Amino acid sequence: MKLRDLAETLGGAVVGDGDIDIVRISTLETATSGDLAFLANPKYEQHLATTKASAVIVDAPRTQYPLNYLVHPKPYFAFSQALKLISPPPGHQLHPGISPHASIDPDVTLGENAHVGSFVEIAAGARIGDNCKIMTGAVIGRDCVLGNNCLIYPNVTLYDDTVIGNNVSIHAGTVIGSDGFGYAQDKGIHHKVYQIGRVRIEDDVEIGANCTVDRAALGETVIGAGTKIDNLVQIAHNVKIGRGCLIVSQVGIAGSTTIGNYVVLAGQAGIVGHLNIPDRVTIAAQAGVSGTLKEGTIYAGSPQRELKEFKILEAHLSRLPERMAELKRLKAEVEELKKKLP
Amino acid sequence: MKLRDLAETLGGAVVGDGDIDIVRISTLETATSGDLAFLANPKYEQHLATTKASAVIVDAPRTQYPLNYLVHPKPYFAFSQALKLISPPPGHQLHPGISPHASIDPDVTLGENAHVGSFVEIAAGARIGDNCKIMTGAVIGRDCVLGNNCLIYPNVTLYDDTVIGNNVSIHAGTVIGSDGFGYAQDKGIHHKVYQIGRVRIEDDVEIGANCTVDRAALGETVIGAGTKIDNLVQIAHNVKIGRGCLIVSQVGIAGSTTIGNYVVLAGQAGIVGHLNIPDRVTIAAQAGVSGTLKEGTIYAGSPQRELKEFKILEAHLSRLPERMAELKRLKAEVEELKKKLP
Amino acid sequence: MKLRDLAETLGGAVVGDGDIDIVRISTLETATSGDLAFLANPKYEQHLATTKASAVIVDAPRTQYPLNYLVHPKPYFAFSQALKLISPPPGHQLHPGISPHASIDPDVTLGENAHVGSFVEIAAGARIGDNCKIMTGAVIGRDCVLGNNCLIYPNVTLYDDTVIGNNVSIHAGTVIGSDGFGYAQDKGIHHKVYQIGRVRIEDDVEIGANCTVDRAALGETVIGAGTKIDNLVQIAHNVKIGRGCLIVSQVGIAGSTTIGNYVVLAGQAGIVGHLNIPDRVTIAAQAGVSGTLKEGTIYAGSPQRELKEFKILEAHLSRLPERMAELKRLKAEVEELKKKLP
Repeated sequence: MKLRDLAETLGGAVVGDGDIDIVRISTLETATSGDLAFLANPKYEQHLATTKASAVIVDAPRTQYPLNYLVHPKPYFAFSQALKLISPPPGHQLHPGISPHASIDPDVTLGENAHVGSFVEIAAGARIGDNCKIMTGAVIGRDCVLGNNCLIYPNVTLYDDTVIGNNVSIHAGTVIGSDGFGYAQDKGIHHKVYQIGRVRIEDDVEIGANCTVDRAALGETVIGAGTKIDNLVQIAHNVKIGRGCLIVSQVGIAGSTTIGNYVVLAGQAGIVGHLNIPDRVTIAAQAGVSGTLKEGTIYAGSPQRELKEFKILEAHLSRLPERMAELKRLKAEVEELKKKLP
Repeated sequence: MKLRDLAETLGGAVVGDGDIDIVRISTLETATSGDLAFLANPKYEQHLATTKASAVIVDAPRTQYPLNYLVHPKPYFAFSQALKLISPPPGHQLHPGISPHASIDPDVTLGENAHVGSFVEIAAGARIGDNCKIMTGAVIGRDCVLGNNCLIYPNVTLYDDTVIGNNVSIHAGTVIGSDGFGYAQDKGIHHKVYQIGRVRIEDDVEIGANCTVDRAALGETVIGAGTKIDNLVQIAHNVKIGRGCLIVSQVGIAGSTTIGNYVVLAGQAGIVGHLNIPDRVTIAAQAGVSGTLKEGTIYAGSPQRELKEFKILEAHLSRLPERMAELKRLKAEVEELKKKLP
Repeated sequence: MKLRDLAETLGGAVVGDGDIDIVRISTLETATSGDLAFLANPKYEQHLATTKASAVIVDAPRTQYPLNYLVHPKPYFAFSQALKLISPPPGHQLHPGISPHASIDPDVTLGENAHVGSFVEIAAGARIGDNCKIMTGAVIGRDCVLGNNCLIYPNVTLYDDTVIGNNVSIHAGTVIGSDGFGYAQDKGIHHKVYQIGRVRIEDDVEIGANCTVDRAALGETVIGAGTKIDNLVQIAHNVKIGRGCLIVSQVGIAGSTTIGNYVVLAGQAGIVGHLNIPDRVTIAAQAGVSGTLKEGTIYAGSPQRELKEFKILEAHLSRLPERMAELKRLKAEVEELKKKLP
């Protein structure tokens, strides 16, 4: 693809030779001829002096380095869009077709251009939209519904009744719709509470590898449109997650908690059950959340504190040994003073 | 099923019309005609005014709301039992039968009424009890033993020699019997210590999705009868877990630790190796346990403290900035006093 | 195998009867006739009085117990080597052969003595070395490269382009090469950043069950030679891990972090992104690492502190309620003193 055409498609401008061919995307350091690189973080600007890239995406041309530039106000975003045009990743390249090694119930509706890999099972009543790619070893349970353009990676398991929107990607090994952790105690025995609800995943959601999303006890566990989930995340039964959230690896969300829109949960954070997390809250890595939070606020620590308070407390903890020594000295001084007084 | 018959089966009483038909179980808020709902938490009592449920399980009839009631001393337990009668969940509905796409070694013993799904492998020497359902893509290793009425969900892997009792459910993606993390260091190299023990799971255990339970180095890793395990839990080699424990999502238990009976480990808690956790201990979420614990006691924090102490410490930490300011003022005052004395 | 031959192979000496046959390896407590046991931890020495083992590996003979000894300066290491000779574990025993239920693209290169289990898919362009065992339900993506003597356990997924060295073991359910968690925000939408790099795993690496290792955005995610990884570990995109590291269960390493050689990360520890962990650092369980660390140093806590400081701080915290009471008393005393002065 010519640099000029790429710039036009991405809404950017060329400074330099727009006729060069872009065949790959790469980093400034590893680029060779034919590569498009990008500069998003100013601390890497030095690499412009040595890069072998044929062109570089920048927010403003660096005239001291005689390179071909694709100038765009948001270089990282432009880079992400260039990738889509030039380097579709694994999974996206699979051709339509049904493997002879797949097991598809006669009572399944498959949309156009479906790719169904080897050893895939699609059970009775499932309805699959157009352009879906269901990869090797994936299991689609009874009466599941998938929209269009879904990518279901290898060895994913969708339990019965799972409902998935359009443009949803689910990475390998992830399990959707497993039973919630519900038992009723009676005479020292944990009696299973059958989990007869379902999981519903809205449009444009991506879920990483080896995650678990439990079906609701009754009703629905919901993941809202545009929410992105990393690997090894646990989402318990009846959790409702809003739109545009980012949930980083190894987070756990306990049962019946509601998460607002544009919430960010950093790695290994844990959220207790039956909570309400308001919109645009950010939870720091490893935080443990069990209290009432305020919209648009950052929290850290376990139990969580507002980030500002958390940092002040941490600073005090770092000085605690010193302060406790002062306290001891002060005690001795007060004893001395007491002796000197009648 | 008629409400009267359901009440009789569950050991409850009808207040209202016992002749109505119950066809589904639902929540008070979402119920429609034909639904049985339940009231276990008094804070939802207001929903009795508006519910469209045909009947409601309660501990005592609410005469101000003209509804049909199934009165039972433990409404949540009664609800869980009603579910079993009326709404068997996914997996339970699978019919006996062997998929033509399964690979079963001739030297396998399969009990009566087995369901074996597509792409299931059962290796030589395995012995499977009656009424087991082994779902798509599950792998049953050599010489595994399963009791009766087991549910093995899709893409589960049982390594060789795993022994499982009756009425055990293992959810999708879980791995039982993988190698323990054991190496012998010599001259800067981590030499693998072959893990030649096994995993033994007793009756009535349920294990969630994408868990890992390692085989013993020598001897057995054991999960005791009636213990319930949530998703993404790690149980290391040679761990022994007692009866009736509840182990919540993302807990990790390190090697050779022994857990007593009726222990509760809340989400993301971690237990170091070679510990002994006594009966009826409760560990709070995200706690890190490395010390000696007392029977029947609740612990929180990392490192763990008794819950009472943990709460006192947390309260002190919340006031620490204020206290440190007081300390500073006090220091200044003592200096003043010292000046005033001879 | 005769005890004498075993001792010779392991570089040890026999004290007692070298002609006895060793047929199994066991613990001192569970050993029966024919078993070799070992004493590595002196606290178990008492078991020498009662063991039924035919021989025991020790660092020096215990003449008070009339047993046959295999004397070796490193008993645990000698035990690990004896296991390899006498008790090869599951997976190692699989015979070469290609299951008729496997799906192998014609454009795959398979080395000698390959074992390929049922429902394995190997996609076009993959090159597999000699003596590899690829077990039931494993998925080997397009253009993957495996060295010799690799063990790929059931239901493992290798995404396209994954490169693996010699003598690498990957346990069941683990996912290698899934997409990194990368999005470019624009107008409130998280636009996916295609992840077009790969994962490269060097020789002698072992990875536990249900782990996730993400492919690089651009370039490589790397796991260095001889590094051992436990279960449920998350390794994000563009992470580089050095040689001989030990990474315990449920650890998470965020994107673009570099880990040196012989680093130990204990269970549930979390490492933020874009960090540099120097050689021979040890991170305690549940620690949260976000700062600059020193080579060869032990850290604990979240945020991390040097272990010595962490212990001092913990001791102060345990005494904090008492100290705060002292502070309060001191304040009152100073008030008293102030009254007594003019």
